[in-house]
Amino acid sequence: MKSVQVIPIEGLPEIQAGDDLAGLVSERSDLKDGDILVVAQKVISKSEGRFRDLKTVEPSAHARELARGMESDPRLVQVVLDESIRVVRSDRVLIVETRHGFVCANAGVDHSNVPGDDNVTLLPVDPDASATALRERIRELAHADVGVVIADTFGRAWRVGIENVALGIAGLPAFVDYRGQPDDWGKELRATVVAVADELAAAAELVMGKTARVPAAVVRGYHPEAPSGRGRDLIRPPEFDLFR
Amino acid sequence: MKSVQVIPIEGLPEIQAGDDLAGLVSERSDLKDGDILVVAQKVISKSEGRFRDLKTVEPSAHARELARGMESDPRLVQVVLDESIRVVRSDRVLIVETRHGFVCANAGVDHSNVPGDDNVTLLPVDPDASATALRERIRELAHADVGVVIADTFGRAWRVGIENVALGIAGLPAFVDYRGQPDDWGKELRATVVAVADELAAAAELVMGKTARVPAAVVRGYHPEAPSGRGRDLIRPPEFDLFR
Repeated sequence: MKSVQVIPIEGLPEIQAGDDLAGLVSERSDLKDGDILVVAQKVISKSEGRFRDLKTVEPSAHARELARGMESDPRLVQVVLDESIRVVRSDRVLIVETRHGFVCANAGVDHSNVPGDDNVTLLPVDPDASATALRERIRELAHADVGVVIADTFGRAWRVGIENVALGIAGLPAFVDYRGQPDDWGKELRATVVAVADELAAAAELVMGKTARVPAAVVRGYHPEAPSGRGRDLIRPPEFDLFR
Repeated sequence: MKSVQVIPIEGLPEIQAGDDLAGLVSERSDLKDGDILVVAQKVISKSEGRFRDLKTVEPSAHARELARGMESDPRLVQVVLDESIRVVRSDRVLIVETRHGFVCANAGVDHSNVPGDDNVTLLPVDPDASATALRERIRELAHADVGVVIADTFGRAWRVGIENVALGIAGLPAFVDYRGQPDDWGKELRATVVAVADELAAAAELVMGKTARVPAAVVRGYHPEAPSGRGRDLIRPPEFDLFR
């Protein structure tokens, strides 16, 4: 087993709708075959034009009622509801199931690091497709076969604080599955499916931070023997969700 | 922002109760001031003698009943109950709140990578104290001021697979708290408390694996500006737990 390096990509400009993120990232990094590029969801969303302007939002009665209970902006609550298929909890914070199936606060709708007082970003429509497109464009521009993780920080049940997770991936495994393999004593490992894409997202966050304008990082030296997967495979199917 | 390196510590022998883990780790790594040593809970538990032999366990009626529903070993269920203060779910898998407050499957009781068919390991009694003791012993032996994370893989609500988290820490922050800081546009960041100790545990898992007998890793180059904390601070207090 070799060391793994986590390298910040610095100096990216503010991303605008339509920007060629693959080009901007390739110019500022030395991407090699086998590298894993972790990009913050927010810059993907910006490049894809996934904004809403709260000034144009008319909140419904339901949004107003929810907002009253949480001392929130009813227009923001309306945008969250528009991005969601189910409200999971609305005590203190609005936890929803997004159209993708993610369970998270505010459907990932966010106004931090977004220009303008009333602008918010939405999650990408299909984070796996976004990751695939970025991976293919990097192959064209940098001639490097890299994996791509699109990451966002989510809260967790039972634990304090937020942690980076993988929303969409391309060219790398979601999991390393040890089931059926022998442990160090020859006994079969059970129930050991490690969500390595989430761990890669978490590792990258250590060099990304929230205010240093480092929305991307490269993880170098991680080459698991496992088939490539999708970010959507990391979403627990409703029938196996004990905490709906 | 500099790169962060994640370095596996290889060649550790099978750990026995009473072993000087600090010595065994120091001999096999080049620990420097500011490094963060991540150690798998299982080797901490082994060194602390936190074993139970299922042959000596007499399951209660409650344990037998729970085990029947989950096709599990009633003696194992009894050990899990002994380590727990509350059963959170018992469909398919036994999710409990441990005496420490962790919500996890089987209270962290595990028989993988443990010698003997009927031996299981238990979580350390006080993982923060275990981390502190290891940190102090490493300072004596290796003359290095390192942070220590004791990590275990936990399942998550709503997401598939397990991920390494920090059970106990010493000499490093549990969180980096961005609340009140300005974002890149001068707006105040809200609700942004990142659980960096969990992200460090996750990063280390990438080089540790489950079968390669690499139960420890060093994270080098991560120096957040935040006060040191405790692993227990990562446990969500019951009054803020929406998913009890």
